[in-house]
Amino acid sequence: MTLKIGVIGTGAIGQDHIRRLTNTLTGAEVVAVNDINLDETKAFVAREKLGAKVYDNGQELIRASDVDALVVTSWGPSHAEFVLGSIAAGKPVFCEKPLATTAKDARSIVDAEIRHGRKLVQVGFMRRYDAGYRMLKAALQAGTIGEALMVHCAHRNPSVPDTYTGDMALTDSFVHEIDVLRWLLDDDYVTAQVVNGRDTRRAEGGLRDPHFVLLETRKGIRIDVEIYVNCQYGYDIQCQVVGETGIANLPEPMSLLLRKDASLSQAILTDWKQRFIASYDVELQEWINSTRDGEVHGPTSWDGYFASVTADACVEAKRTRAIVPISIDDTPAFYARR
Amino acid sequence: MTLKIGVIGTGAIGQDHIRRLTNTLTGAEVVAVNDINLDETKAFVAREKLGAKVYDNGQELIRASDVDALVVTSWGPSHAEFVLGSIAAGKPVFCEKPLATTAKDARSIVDAEIRHGRKLVQVGFMRRYDAGYRMLKAALQAGTIGEALMVHCAHRNPSVPDTYTGDMALTDSFVHEIDVLRWLLDDDYVTAQVVNGRDTRRAEGGLRDPHFVLLETRKGIRIDVEIYVNCQYGYDIQCQVVGETGIANLPEPMSLLLRKDASLSQAILTDWKQRFIASYDVELQEWINSTRDGEVHGPTSWDGYFASVTADACVEAKRTRAIVPISIDDTPAFYARR
Amino acid sequence: MTLKIGVIGTGAIGQDHIRRLTNTLTGAEVVAVNDINLDETKAFVAREKLGAKVYDNGQELIRASDVDALVVTSWGPSHAEFVLGSIAAGKPVFCEKPLATTAKDARSIVDAEIRHGRKLVQVGFMRRYDAGYRMLKAALQAGTIGEALMVHCAHRNPSVPDTYTGDMALTDSFVHEIDVLRWLLDDDYVTAQVVNGRDTRRAEGGLRDPHFVLLETRKGIRIDVEIYVNCQYGYDIQCQVVGETGIANLPEPMSLLLRKDASLSQAILTDWKQRFIASYDVELQEWINSTRDGEVHGPTSWDGYFASVTADACVEAKRTRAIVPISIDDTPAFYARR
Amino acid sequence: MTLKIGVIGTGAIGQDHIRRLTNTLTGAEVVAVNDINLDETKAFVAREKLGAKVYDNGQELIRASDVDALVVTSWGPSHAEFVLGSIAAGKPVFCEKPLATTAKDARSIVDAEIRHGRKLVQVGFMRRYDAGYRMLKAALQAGTIGEALMVHCAHRNPSVPDTYTGDMALTDSFVHEIDVLRWLLDDDYVTAQVVNGRDTRRAEGGLRDPHFVLLETRKGIRIDVEIYVNCQYGYDIQCQVVGETGIANLPEPMSLLLRKDASLSQAILTDWKQRFIASYDVELQEWINSTRDGEVHGPTSWDGYFASVTADACVEAKRTRAIVPISIDDTPAFYARR
Repeated sequence: MTLKIGVIGTGAIGQDHIRRLTNTLTGAEVVAVNDINLDETKAFVAREKLGAKVYDNGQELIRASDVDALVVTSWGPSHAEFVLGSIAAGKPVFCEKPLATTAKDARSIVDAEIRHGRKLVQVGFMRRYDAGYRMLKAALQAGTIGEALMVHCAHRNPSVPDTYTGDMALTDSFVHEIDVLRWLLDDDYVTAQVVNGRDTRRAEGGLRDPHFVLLETRKGIRIDVEIYVNCQYGYDIQCQVVGETGIANLPEPMSLLLRKDASLSQAILTDWKQRFIASYDVELQEWINSTRDGEVHGPTSWDGYFASVTADACVEAKRTRAIVPISIDDTPAFYARR
Repeated sequence: MTLKIGVIGTGAIGQDHIRRLTNTLTGAEVVAVNDINLDETKAFVAREKLGAKVYDNGQELIRASDVDALVVTSWGPSHAEFVLGSIAAGKPVFCEKPLATTAKDARSIVDAEIRHGRKLVQVGFMRRYDAGYRMLKAALQAGTIGEALMVHCAHRNPSVPDTYTGDMALTDSFVHEIDVLRWLLDDDYVTAQVVNGRDTRRAEGGLRDPHFVLLETRKGIRIDVEIYVNCQYGYDIQCQVVGETGIANLPEPMSLLLRKDASLSQAILTDWKQRFIASYDVELQEWINSTRDGEVHGPTSWDGYFASVTADACVEAKRTRAIVPISIDDTPAFYARR
Repeated sequence: MTLKIGVIGTGAIGQDHIRRLTNTLTGAEVVAVNDINLDETKAFVAREKLGAKVYDNGQELIRASDVDALVVTSWGPSHAEFVLGSIAAGKPVFCEKPLATTAKDARSIVDAEIRHGRKLVQVGFMRRYDAGYRMLKAALQAGTIGEALMVHCAHRNPSVPDTYTGDMALTDSFVHEIDVLRWLLDDDYVTAQVVNGRDTRRAEGGLRDPHFVLLETRKGIRIDVEIYVNCQYGYDIQCQVVGETGIANLPEPMSLLLRKDASLSQAILTDWKQRFIASYDVELQEWINSTRDGEVHGPTSWDGYFASVTADACVEAKRTRAIVPISIDDTPAFYARR
Repeated sequence: MTLKIGVIGTGAIGQDHIRRLTNTLTGAEVVAVNDINLDETKAFVAREKLGAKVYDNGQELIRASDVDALVVTSWGPSHAEFVLGSIAAGKPVFCEKPLATTAKDARSIVDAEIRHGRKLVQVGFMRRYDAGYRMLKAALQAGTIGEALMVHCAHRNPSVPDTYTGDMALTDSFVHEIDVLRWLLDDDYVTAQVVNGRDTRRAEGGLRDPHFVLLETRKGIRIDVEIYVNCQYGYDIQCQVVGETGIANLPEPMSLLLRKDASLSQAILTDWKQRFIASYDVELQEWINSTRDGEVHGPTSWDGYFASVTADACVEAKRTRAIVPISIDDTPAFYARR
């Protein structure tokens, strides 16, 4: 049984996902697409020789009888309405991050889903599907390094575009660590602190860079994350878990070891899109498989909501220089982790 | 258009390939299977809920009208007859290595294919599809280290079963290097030398172990390969290309960096099946794609024949202790590399 | 001209230094020794066939006319009196860390030395003489990674003895980072924060472990240091400097790369005495050389005082959970760095 | 008791050794120097403020009553006569490599020393004093990787001067591996083979480059060494020992790990003088110490003779393309290893 999918939003990531679903993954077929830019969408469908119908209205697409499940890859501020529409239609929906642009909107999705009575929403936090993070989680679960006590991370971009402003280091970049570390540690956050110091002169437009964030978890694990988005040298994601009996590091991406020009070296990626590219395939294939089984195994709307609340606390912590509590209800039984 | 595949041979590797074609890859469907052991095949088909028809005769399966292409994963000595049958039927065939158990039989396949007039055969040398070897070839093609001058390799297994005897280090293990290095260097071999010295006491049944093989290519590149199949510590494939301006090493498989027990370490695989497991998926997906386009992009029957002639020369070089010429016709235009 | 040295304190480190001065280094001779335990000292002198005179009074040894310079390796609480005695006698003195057990006592040494009018005191912070830290400082000075913005460190011991209690992680272990990072960055600290979280169950006697310390420098550089003294796996000192254009890590100590037991590994030291053993030779040889030139090039008594004030601030920060200012006068011109 | 040393030859290496003996090492004093270029020697002595007497005749210096031991660092072809002179005078002598420029001359030194009845000669093969090679030998002796079966090495220079011609890759560069591997394995060589293939276009003056040498030892260990003296990228010495239960690699020289310019890298040395610079100190200090004890612990004249015979066999093997036996008497009891 092939899963028939409607995709809302055919920008860069939407097009990538459509190609994935069509040419690489198995068990799914894109039957409907919609975008605010109708002409470009039609051109794309023609160019890729897709058999998909083009809708000029997202909610109509959601309700189409031949659409089994939705992929929402539209502009961030429109995510909430399409996810809510999918829940209203009782259809499974994969929503790219963010689930919503405010914690309040994310919460309304959580509430609607609980009212509906069955989980339908998966959020596109793809790092959970990265082979390296999975190795790290497997090692923790196997007790390879004992109980986790601290986690040291870095999230580094070579540079950022002019549109990257204000607190996006926290709300846009760091949000990936927020989700993946909760999953990795199977834990929740209780406080946040943000430290700024000497800024790189490579940052433009008054951006503070780097940030240093400290999170405390319910179990007492201390997490620190350097977020440095003008580091010049590469796109570099580091994660080191300090355990009671040893320490484990996220693997470096595989690359050739070169001896050249007085240097023993391996390449560091510079394009963030390459770093987790394989994760997108795994993420969507597992979503197709679990959706066909009527289940949601990936990041839930509760996870999306938790990420939103945590990011908001970090923004406040940055502003106030204080250690800010992360206030959130206990995880509803509906979203209990297995 | 889905490629309809008949699989001959449902042992371990055959079952793996059937599962791949059915659950992981896209664009193909297994519609027919055959094996010398009919009952087990029927049980497998039922267990996996496959829609494939079970044939009690391989040649009959080849000729079945709904079979577009063949996958031959039967017992090695039967490969030649099924590949020849596929050529006779004018159908594309993917044959697990070896293409044939003698150079003479491999040559007869080459001859039959040339007579047929169109390439139909791909041999299952999966290392060409490994991400690491592909990085290495891309670096060579990009001139990253200049022209290749020497290649140092190692092929190490932790241990081998009792059935691993005589010259299998050359004919069964080393044959992978024979193929992948010809492809990597885009070159052919002209001489072979085999050196034995101090044997490990871990080898059983009088096996000589390790071997050290030297190959010389048409361009003058010198290749040396340690083949050590009782190395105890892991399954470890090393390849270092020495170029005019630098040196490149095949990447280590990705793994966690651990600090534990007074050691900074990363795991080495011990199971050979894990080392190239991702390559099988890539290999078969690319075979499906090119077959649907009516082409053969992977290792040809000429490559299979060349590997067979080279392995024979190594066996003779081991016996005689001499530098043995590798005598083979020039590559027919039919098989010219692009 | 051989430098004639008197050594006060012939415990473990004192004996090591005497052997160094006698058998390994050049330009010095131990002519006088003193220890609270006179019999053991005499036995040591006899056993090592030293030509040194044994004194039963440290201050008398300091004033002996054939003693050019002092090495103080006695019990910590006695350091201040012997250093002050050396200053009173106008003789150069190398004092093992700590310079004094209270900031007040360290300050009194600073004041006495300034009154004396010429620098005489060097403190035994040996990490400044480690080849790795020197590479790191050279890279910073060469601009290899641009201006430093953040520093991430770890100080890990496999375990600690029963005598290691209370805040010794800060006053005894971390004090090495306090000194070496000031030297590395050529900067001073302005605030300290200490974070405790989940403690390892391997810590005994109610010890909090690990600690996480944040320091802020005058230039705004943010330093974080994990101090984890029951990490089980080894004695491991990490230091990573994040610069404007790149990142540099303190080298790992040299060791064999092994492929063994399904692991690609190199040894991590477990004995802290081995980690900086070569630094002690460099430190004392450079001290001999500069002392013969009438100069002090190593860590001064101001550095010892600054370390003491910083450690006190960390202890208070740990107790109060607050960000604690490090209040200290500006560096006197007398101690200005070159 | 200070060892009083006469140095013959005050070129670059001679001056380095004189500075070492005077400023860095302990227990020795240079009291006499000689060189074919008398004026430059006098200038050097004055410049370095040495208390040494300048001799215009090497043999006279050897016989001077205040000279306890000799260091021969003159032009290679003169080594034999000064070493023979030292033996005739019954004085210990440290001779830089080569011991002699022909195997015949080296043999005459061996014979003279045996006639004298006590070992006096040490040859300057400094790699035996390198910390990395010593780690490797210690691991072998400890059984860390079981019995050695194969050794894979590389000896790479970035480039060579115009004066580097003919077979110097074998007689001048490879000779270091010849000595250090005999010492490492505690074994002797029985055959040699030399392979040339595709030459780098960076080699000038018709030089063949790289070479690939295969040695077989008495125990059957197989050694292969790539000698590549125009590798462009650095001075790089590699040594990997393949044992029955594991594999050990010579450590890389310590260096900073950098993340910069899309690369995770560490520096490779380009100047051969830096690679083993610490070994020279260890070598001469141990020579001083053992000489004061009346013993020779380092490479003997037999080792120098063996190196010469092996290098000659390699030159012949290169010329003939054959596997050449290394014919040499059994080690005389006089030179038996402990």
